[in-house]
Amino acid sequence: MSDYEEGKSRWWGWGNLDKTFDLEERENLLPFLMERLGFTPDRQHFTDPTLDEFTLPQPRIPDEAFRKLEETLGKDNVSSQPFHRISHSMGKSYRDLLRWRLRQLERPVDVVVWPREEREVIFTLDLAKKYNLMVIPFGGGSSVTGGVEALGAERYSGVISVDMARMNRLLRVDPTSHTATAQAGIQGPDLEEGLNAQGFTMGHFPESFHHSSLGGWIVTRSAGRMSTGYGKIEDMVISLKMATPEGIISTKRTPHTAAGPSLLDLCIGSEGTLGILTEATMRIRPYPNVFDYHGLIFRNFPAGVSAIREILQADVLPACIRLSDRSETALAQAVRSTGGSPLKRKAENMVLRLLASRGYSFDDGAFMVIGFEGEREKVDETRAAALTICRKLGGFHLGTSPGKQWYRSRYDMPYFRDMLLNWGIMVDTLETATTWDNLLHLYGEVRRAIREAIEEGGKSGIIACHVSHSYKEGASLYYTFLAPMEEGNELGQWLRVKRAATDAICEYGGTITHHHGVGYEHAPWMEREVGREGLRVLQSLKSTLDPQGIMNPGKLLP
Amino acid sequence: MSDYEEGKSRWWGWGNLDKTFDLEERENLLPFLMERLGFTPDRQHFTDPTLDEFTLPQPRIPDEAFRKLEETLGKDNVSSQPFHRISHSMGKSYRDLLRWRLRQLERPVDVVVWPREEREVIFTLDLAKKYNLMVIPFGGGSSVTGGVEALGAERYSGVISVDMARMNRLLRVDPTSHTATAQAGIQGPDLEEGLNAQGFTMGHFPESFHHSSLGGWIVTRSAGRMSTGYGKIEDMVISLKMATPEGIISTKRTPHTAAGPSLLDLCIGSEGTLGILTEATMRIRPYPNVFDYHGLIFRNFPAGVSAIREILQADVLPACIRLSDRSETALAQAVRSTGGSPLKRKAENMVLRLLASRGYSFDDGAFMVIGFEGEREKVDETRAAALTICRKLGGFHLGTSPGKQWYRSRYDMPYFRDMLLNWGIMVDTLETATTWDNLLHLYGEVRRAIREAIEEGGKSGIIACHVSHSYKEGASLYYTFLAPMEEGNELGQWLRVKRAATDAICEYGGTITHHHGVGYEHAPWMEREVGREGLRVLQSLKSTLDPQGIMNPGKLLP
Repeated sequence: MSDYEEGKSRWWGWGNLDKTFDLEERENLLPFLMERLGFTPDRQHFTDPTLDEFTLPQPRIPDEAFRKLEETLGKDNVSSQPFHRISHSMGKSYRDLLRWRLRQLERPVDVVVWPREEREVIFTLDLAKKYNLMVIPFGGGSSVTGGVEALGAERYSGVISVDMARMNRLLRVDPTSHTATAQAGIQGPDLEEGLNAQGFTMGHFPESFHHSSLGGWIVTRSAGRMSTGYGKIEDMVISLKMATPEGIISTKRTPHTAAGPSLLDLCIGSEGTLGILTEATMRIRPYPNVFDYHGLIFRNFPAGVSAIREILQADVLPACIRLSDRSETALAQAVRSTGGSPLKRKAENMVLRLLASRGYSFDDGAFMVIGFEGEREKVDETRAAALTICRKLGGFHLGTSPGKQWYRSRYDMPYFRDMLLNWGIMVDTLETATTWDNLLHLYGEVRRAIREAIEEGGKSGIIACHVSHSYKEGASLYYTFLAPMEEGNELGQWLRVKRAATDAICEYGGTITHHHGVGYEHAPWMEREVGREGLRVLQSLKSTLDPQGIMNPGKLLP
Repeated sequence: MSDYEEGKSRWWGWGNLDKTFDLEERENLLPFLMERLGFTPDRQHFTDPTLDEFTLPQPRIPDEAFRKLEETLGKDNVSSQPFHRISHSMGKSYRDLLRWRLRQLERPVDVVVWPREEREVIFTLDLAKKYNLMVIPFGGGSSVTGGVEALGAERYSGVISVDMARMNRLLRVDPTSHTATAQAGIQGPDLEEGLNAQGFTMGHFPESFHHSSLGGWIVTRSAGRMSTGYGKIEDMVISLKMATPEGIISTKRTPHTAAGPSLLDLCIGSEGTLGILTEATMRIRPYPNVFDYHGLIFRNFPAGVSAIREILQADVLPACIRLSDRSETALAQAVRSTGGSPLKRKAENMVLRLLASRGYSFDDGAFMVIGFEGEREKVDETRAAALTICRKLGGFHLGTSPGKQWYRSRYDMPYFRDMLLNWGIMVDTLETATTWDNLLHLYGEVRRAIREAIEEGGKSGIIACHVSHSYKEGASLYYTFLAPMEEGNELGQWLRVKRAATDAICEYGGTITHHHGVGYEHAPWMEREVGREGLRVLQSLKSTLDPQGIMNPGKLLP
């Protein structure tokens, strides 16, 4: 499942070829978008690229180095075949997907290796030091921040992509301590399958779940959709091992320690710039008996935001709460499945009329998905407490049907992105977070910045937003924006919008990323995020652990 | 309350002179200890020291530097008076208390300053750089790890103790985001009073609460007694500002971020070796309506340990759970208040007989205190769930009386330490943590190491232990050991026991400190704790932010 396979992987887009986005199931979606974005699906702006459209230069790695890699890792675990080089040269950001379609492969890696044990990782790093090779750790390849791209390759004798997919063993499940130790390359579904078989879950389900790895989650400080209940990745890591060019960092397996600054929290979020994560011990939780997802609609976004805040601050912890603003609520309504019997659809329409009579509307309201996971009794209690708060703030409970539908299709949207791109639609997401007192202010300002930047190119688009992860102190805001591409200026258009949005985030008190990470795309704002001294600290960490600068250069630090 | 005041502060021991440990209230305690430790309170091994017993050298700070400090901070905020110099020269570890009594003041600081604003901290650091002065940040002075001692003073032109007690303002309470921002020098009671007045609490109550500061809690990665419910200090810090010799580190006020390695978690636990914490924004919680503390007794320690583990892993979160082993249970019984009416005591004795008939004993069992805080309904629910699990594992519910008594006297024991020392009793505590699978093993090995090290000196003592802070994955172990001092070898005796215990902690998988911090006393074990690479990382942080090495040298790093 985890290895990229030629003829099976959509290397230029999302997921595997055997899965696509089902438009027939959602017959309102295309008309909705066509009307607002003014495109016709019969006109393809782009076509999917094929391998033979890319002419690769000879791999630059010295023969001796290549031979040594083959000798030590085994021939099957070293490749400079075009498919492997191409598929490991970019991630899955809009910028990446666009460049594939523009047939722009500027920075192919030279060789891909698949270590199977920590000692092979160490060997690879030693070799890279000796031959001055750039090393790019590769987890699931789903980075949306340019995290796996070979930047400044000319300063190195070659570029190795270290694909961790074959370091995929679940090493130990400790049912007493509720911890599990795994190699860092294990992919989401394999890890969960192994844990589920023993009655546990880790509870980490990012949208990239099927195409990302434990190590990738940790080094990008990722958050899963159910982080309200299960925590973000950094709440789950008990200990880890990271191979750096200078040696191994191995933190103690302890529930907590007061022994100085946290080395754990230095490795978490290091994005491959300090070393390669090889192993981690994670907190696990009993596999839930009940998955109970509900939909609600609020009269407006601020009312829903207050509901989330009050729920969290009352110590009521659902697995997941998401709240869409007006634009996203309309979009969610358009995406909604239109399958099922005519009777069901008639009933749904009746509900909509009833809601309208009470002042709720999917064109103007705020749609919430709230999910509870665990044992029956606890789920019932938590749900009762949460829904009571929602009702107090005007939330109308739509029942489980919209919740179930969201849950069922929660990994689908990235597949739609590829279709939109080919129709000439710019579509990207970005995210931030702030404290509750600043949330609506930040929400409005970032929205305005995105809208103005889109309009600057003479287009108008859709800017949708939802609260995706919440805390007692504040929440994240997750934006999706769509607009017709500026033909011939596709990358420039995107960069203008991205810059405007991120500048606004910095100006109005948000963090530049809540869970996507920094990578290449957010690096220019790191000084504004962490300050001059903060940046110096990060730079000194880098020069301590990677004095030659071979580890994933150009990411994280500007 | 926070400033050390001549004639009021027990600078050579714990707390202020107007408070002492009430032995009359606990008439069983002294006979219990006398029998086991073989001492008589009428024979004083030591007497409390007085200021005039210490001859201080002239303060070494250059005149020009002293004058500049007076000019900028104001004469009232700069002192080289003997009382100030002496009271700022050591903390409150057993080693410190012993040295006072041995009249050993090896390393007096030269001058104490009390900045009131961040700019005065920055000024002090700049001046220290210019004149090569050692800087020791001083919060409440309650360090039990040698955290405020001037080590290697000969390499500097003088030593400044920067007492933060006058940077004590609560700057902002944000009732929407449930956060509060305060200057780092604010002491526990002042902070809580300010928050309570607005309906909030921070929920951080270490044993040192009355004599420690917000900044001290953060830079030592402290944990309060109610950390199970409210979190450890690092779970509460939203953002902070730290003045380093190279500039200010200021982290973003956000509930979470994925922007790289955590600078927040670098400053937390930095123990004054990188800079001086000046301000922090903390998570706060609604002030609880109900404080509900209970006592239980288990037939043995492992049964109680299982109960705690099951409670936590069932997602039931009391504010506090503590479980004493057999020795500590006997000690707790001896410490118990014997006040009240003869009728009350008769009733208590009946309960004890009833317990004995059911196989429970305070000489052989494991005593648990479990506390719940919050709103009535939630407290009732949580208590019901927790007590059900306790009963399943054989816990006998003793009602609220022992819980209330623990709660009422929870800050008393450090006062007793001073009396014990004067009677010639070595008394110290140490703590570690590990995952549940390893807890009982570690418990036994550390206990054995302490016992053997005490016996090596021909003494026998009391070694008591309790589980003090628990997590889903594991818990901390908190040891108290008492033994007659080896006359003439008091410091050597302690060091032998401390070494044996900490070596055992390292060997059997514990962390060298769960919440006391590293300071000077744990620094020799840091390499075993974090590894060679880990140590190099911490050293590089230090040289980046404090290239001259003026910040609290000799602490944290060996």
